[in-house]
Amino acid sequence: MSTEDAAKAAGPAQAAGPGRPGAEVFDWVDAARRERERAGLVRELRPRRPDAETLDLAGNDYLGLCRHPEVKAAAADAALRWGAGSTGSRLVTGTTALHARLEAELAAFCGFEAGLVFASGYAANLAAVAALGGPGGLIVSDAANHASLIDGCRLARSEVVVAPHADPAAFAKALDGHRGRALVVTDGVFSVAGARAPLPELAAVCRAAGAGLLVDDAHGLGVLGEGGRGSLAAARLAGAPDVVATVTLSKALGSQGGAVLGPARVIRHLVSAARTFMFDTGLAPASAGGALAALRLLRREPARPARVLAVARELYRRLADRGLPAIAPETAVVAVAAPSAEAAVTWAAGCRAAGVEVGCFRPPSVPRGVFRLRLTARADLTEDQLARAVEAVAETAPAGARRGG
Amino acid sequence: MSTEDAAKAAGPAQAAGPGRPGAEVFDWVDAARRERERAGLVRELRPRRPDAETLDLAGNDYLGLCRHPEVKAAAADAALRWGAGSTGSRLVTGTTALHARLEAELAAFCGFEAGLVFASGYAANLAAVAALGGPGGLIVSDAANHASLIDGCRLARSEVVVAPHADPAAFAKALDGHRGRALVVTDGVFSVAGARAPLPELAAVCRAAGAGLLVDDAHGLGVLGEGGRGSLAAARLAGAPDVVATVTLSKALGSQGGAVLGPARVIRHLVSAARTFMFDTGLAPASAGGALAALRLLRREPARPARVLAVARELYRRLADRGLPAIAPETAVVAVAAPSAEAAVTWAAGCRAAGVEVGCFRPPSVPRGVFRLRLTARADLTEDQLARAVEAVAETAPAGARRGG
Repeated sequence: MSTEDAAKAAGPAQAAGPGRPGAEVFDWVDAARRERERAGLVRELRPRRPDAETLDLAGNDYLGLCRHPEVKAAAADAALRWGAGSTGSRLVTGTTALHARLEAELAAFCGFEAGLVFASGYAANLAAVAALGGPGGLIVSDAANHASLIDGCRLARSEVVVAPHADPAAFAKALDGHRGRALVVTDGVFSVAGARAPLPELAAVCRAAGAGLLVDDAHGLGVLGEGGRGSLAAARLAGAPDVVATVTLSKALGSQGGAVLGPARVIRHLVSAARTFMFDTGLAPASAGGALAALRLLRREPARPARVLAVARELYRRLADRGLPAIAPETAVVAVAAPSAEAAVTWAAGCRAAGVEVGCFRPPSVPRGVFRLRLTARADLTEDQLARAVEAVAETAPAGARRGG
Repeated sequence: MSTEDAAKAAGPAQAAGPGRPGAEVFDWVDAARRERERAGLVRELRPRRPDAETLDLAGNDYLGLCRHPEVKAAAADAALRWGAGSTGSRLVTGTTALHARLEAELAAFCGFEAGLVFASGYAANLAAVAALGGPGGLIVSDAANHASLIDGCRLARSEVVVAPHADPAAFAKALDGHRGRALVVTDGVFSVAGARAPLPELAAVCRAAGAGLLVDDAHGLGVLGEGGRGSLAAARLAGAPDVVATVTLSKALGSQGGAVLGPARVIRHLVSAARTFMFDTGLAPASAGGALAALRLLRREPARPARVLAVARELYRRLADRGLPAIAPETAVVAVAAPSAEAAVTWAAGCRAAGVEVGCFRPPSVPRGVFRLRLTARADLTEDQLARAVEAVAETAPAGARRGG
């Protein structure tokens, strides 16, 4: 049946346009859209094709594993073996032997006692923050944290203090004199510009105050630490009894999903207490299988993380040489400042027209007044691709983008 | 590298046991576990094997499509064609032509103008409630709503009124005299016992009060309405300008993910406003491909939904004939009351030992004091399987489970 036939078969669906009874209910949505248009903050979806020849410097496939033959084959095999879905909540029928293996190998690789896999990284963060905060608890959250950590704080029903970005002294002050349980929550790598959190200092602050430390290492896994073991391994904090990490399966591991890693008792607690674990369908077998294959590739080829960092530094150096306001990378992300929302959108569109996809960051993805191109290095970029990327960004730079100009 | 080698290579990970510095931070987790143990509310994960011969009456694969050869093949093909993941946010690189096609066909099938696919059903509900509520708005939420709708209310920063379950007059009272925007939020099918919401009555209340109606049809899609078009098509509300639906790809469609369906302007609004859409990685291509294949199968074989309802009624009839306190099914779910948490756990374990997997519902999945077995009918159950299921549940019933006994 064609799409049109299906629509007809659905029967008495009314046109949703103005003038129909009830049409005024969502008029406020149009007003919100006009406001967003005036501010240059409307988002549009651009479906890509499987055969697109665009060079991708916008995605988070840092290690180039999403389309690696072994990873794709493992995802396909898992779908054929287990089915297209996990069929239920992880507590009921949604836990397969594949989920259990992924959890064990991921925790062991990153240096933690135990792990728990979620349907998305967002869900993992909601779970960890909400289940480890809770009524009566205190959460101290970095001001630049990812949306999913912020939403976790909102769901935790704890007292929440937002601390200035990456300022351990401010975190210490916020924890000073607390009673009951307390949790410090931070990104390990802040995704917009790829900046690293001061984890050793934050861990010391937490230890002194008797607080837990929860680190979202979505952009650290596969990039930082020995062999890509992440920010916490790099800071020698992995496996500490008062430290919990969240990671994603959708960036360096090229798949979908998220995980919480930590002491076994904390992971057991999440099984019985985390709402996004208990009340969501388990991760699809194909995604678990793809992530597990990527993890094994990463163990087997431990030089990939160093390569992605080298590519990021080289990308930065060449952009800076062309006079562009790029920010020196600490991880796989190279951010370039744009003069305005409109300029950022036009610049990114120019890059796309030149065959290079780059990220375009505007509020609310970044703070008010911040506009950025965001380029992500990939371990599998060739010299030719690197040169093409720099050329596209430099040639399409808007007036006012260059330093001093 | 083996798991053990990987753990060693991770370096200085400390044992997380008691006595280490920082070990006391999560001591409260052990206390919470002991309390949960006393109440019989601890959850354990039981990884299943691909070749398990257990009869599954616990999952939500209502139409038996999760392991359908066409659906599995489509999921595998999508992974091979597009990669194991979508590589980024739907706003950046995470929208493929496959996502766009799924959205168009799903919306058309269910009778809505437009649709938007999310990484999970939980994320779709968080998005719809939070983005259509918002500061200054009023949300009236059914007391028995799913956890994801409740969390959406918590994230919306609206005034939230919880109305008594399935009571349109109470919803009308809660909306009486409201100013500004208002949204009524309800499950279309309440999952624990499969009860249907009074959608026509709620829609009339909303229309009279100028409120939007948001219905989570996770358990209605593929089961209710002509050809499985869902609760809203059944109530002739699909496509109305003041009605929004959420559905899941992980139940009748056998895959993973969720979607919001509604007026095009509402869907466009979510693209620029819904945090779980903007800040999460897009659904994996394998899951989108699996769901699309299942949807096309459902269009081609429109008798599957009637079959699942007939199986549920037959299952109920036979359980009732054996004197068991089953609840007459309105959908695909047959709930059976258990006398206590311990009895429910023992009963479900007995069924499992007899080769039949059934759901076991205890608080907080259900209200305090409620304990249930939950059996889900499947369109592909054979007469032999149905008889086996009834036999297992009846033979393992605990003392006190039977009516009057």
